[in-house]
Amino acid sequence: MSNPTAAMIVIGDEILSGRTRDSNMHHLAGALTEVGIDLKEVRVVSDDHGAIIAAVQALSVAYTHVFTSGGIGPTHDDITADCIAAAFNREIGVRDDARQILAEHYARAGTELNDARLRMARIPDGAALIENSVSAAPGFVVENVHVMAGVPAVFEAMVASVLPGLTGGRPLISQTLRIDWGEGDIAGPLGVLAKEYPHLSMGSYPFQKDGIYGAHVVIRGSDPGMVEAAMDKLKAAFA
Amino acid sequence: MSNPTAAMIVIGDEILSGRTRDSNMHHLAGALTEVGIDLKEVRVVSDDHGAIIAAVQALSVAYTHVFTSGGIGPTHDDITADCIAAAFNREIGVRDDARQILAEHYARAGTELNDARLRMARIPDGAALIENSVSAAPGFVVENVHVMAGVPAVFEAMVASVLPGLTGGRPLISQTLRIDWGEGDIAGPLGVLAKEYPHLSMGSYPFQKDGIYGAHVVIRGSDPGMVEAAMDKLKAAFA
Repeated sequence: MSNPTAAMIVIGDEILSGRTRDSNMHHLAGALTEVGIDLKEVRVVSDDHGAIIAAVQALSVAYTHVFTSGGIGPTHDDITADCIAAAFNREIGVRDDARQILAEHYARAGTELNDARLRMARIPDGAALIENSVSAAPGFVVENVHVMAGVPAVFEAMVASVLPGLTGGRPLISQTLRIDWGEGDIAGPLGVLAKEYPHLSMGSYPFQKDGIYGAHVVIRGSDPGMVEAAMDKLKAAFA
Repeated sequence: MSNPTAAMIVIGDEILSGRTRDSNMHHLAGALTEVGIDLKEVRVVSDDHGAIIAAVQALSVAYTHVFTSGGIGPTHDDITADCIAAAFNREIGVRDDARQILAEHYARAGTELNDARLRMARIPDGAALIENSVSAAPGFVVENVHVMAGVPAVFEAMVASVLPGLTGGRPLISQTLRIDWGEGDIAGPLGVLAKEYPHLSMGSYPFQKDGIYGAHVVIRGSDPGMVEAAMDKLKAAFA
């Protein structure tokens, strides 16, 4: 049986303008690999209704799970919740359970729950909430789309609260060998090995450091014994 | 007149598995912003023929320029050139000018130009070559798609050789103000200001550091005077 699949949508002009370097993609990629969910595609889109809705609709039908990051804060440019509601043709409004979470959080902090903050309690009808152990304002799940915050600490906390509830697959095992040969000399033997093991994925990632040309060759697969056997042959070929 | 638009396709299982942290997206985003080309979308796809071809076809019709990174090396998992040829229904084969570049480079290095390395001279028919000042093997351009290497140093060299040949637009000017208020207190006045300046983009990027909640508010636009004026009002509102 093949693993569940996933896609991610990173929402934010600040990534596309080069102002901010996204780190959520790398975090989610590693976390999904650990639980055996295969991340197949990531799209980075701008803070634009049409772009967000199109990405959500396209990816939610193509993959088992979709994860979004960004655009669920209190300011005018936070439009993700409305876009998700529109993508699934659902109503959206301030929901009592989300309002209650915010009210308790801000009461503890001695901060006013004003209209802007209350925007973070706007949740599409029928969504389940995602706990935010960092700053309270919840994410939410509509159908197979998990809507999470863009701030890395909050995103990571939400991923940690979501993943245990998802059915994973066989985690991908990977082994890496550093080979100090030019990649053009690695390619031939590696290609032969890749044909011999069609159920494994073999990648070659070249580097050049202090005048040495080499590559990290990574062998990935869900069967640890098979990965091990292929790695032994790889080592023998380049010994 | 609005700026030219662009999309990027990052190709590689190693990004989606979390093994490698992509840096090319952030580099290209900054470089395009400087020359007034608006990066609208990025897709990260796996080393899969169907996925690469679908992304190339969808994005090349939707945007002025498309830039790809990854998958043009000598190993069996480098399939980008074949996918680009297939996406545009062109033939592909070793081309004399590209072979010549490789032959000279490897002759200087005293390295054999073997079959694997010769794969890097496979160029779709009618493509223009992109210079690679780092490691010789060229990128190429088919229609509006610029095909470049994934190794960051090579990718950056190719971007530097491509961008001067493209017609840019009005560079986006941005000014940033750090405001040490909770984002929920910034949101109201910022929303009013954003409505007053519909031609500017205003973004709020919250942070939490040493117990202080605040946000960096960024105002972007192509008219420096307008950005300046809006920033003055922003400062006055939060003074």
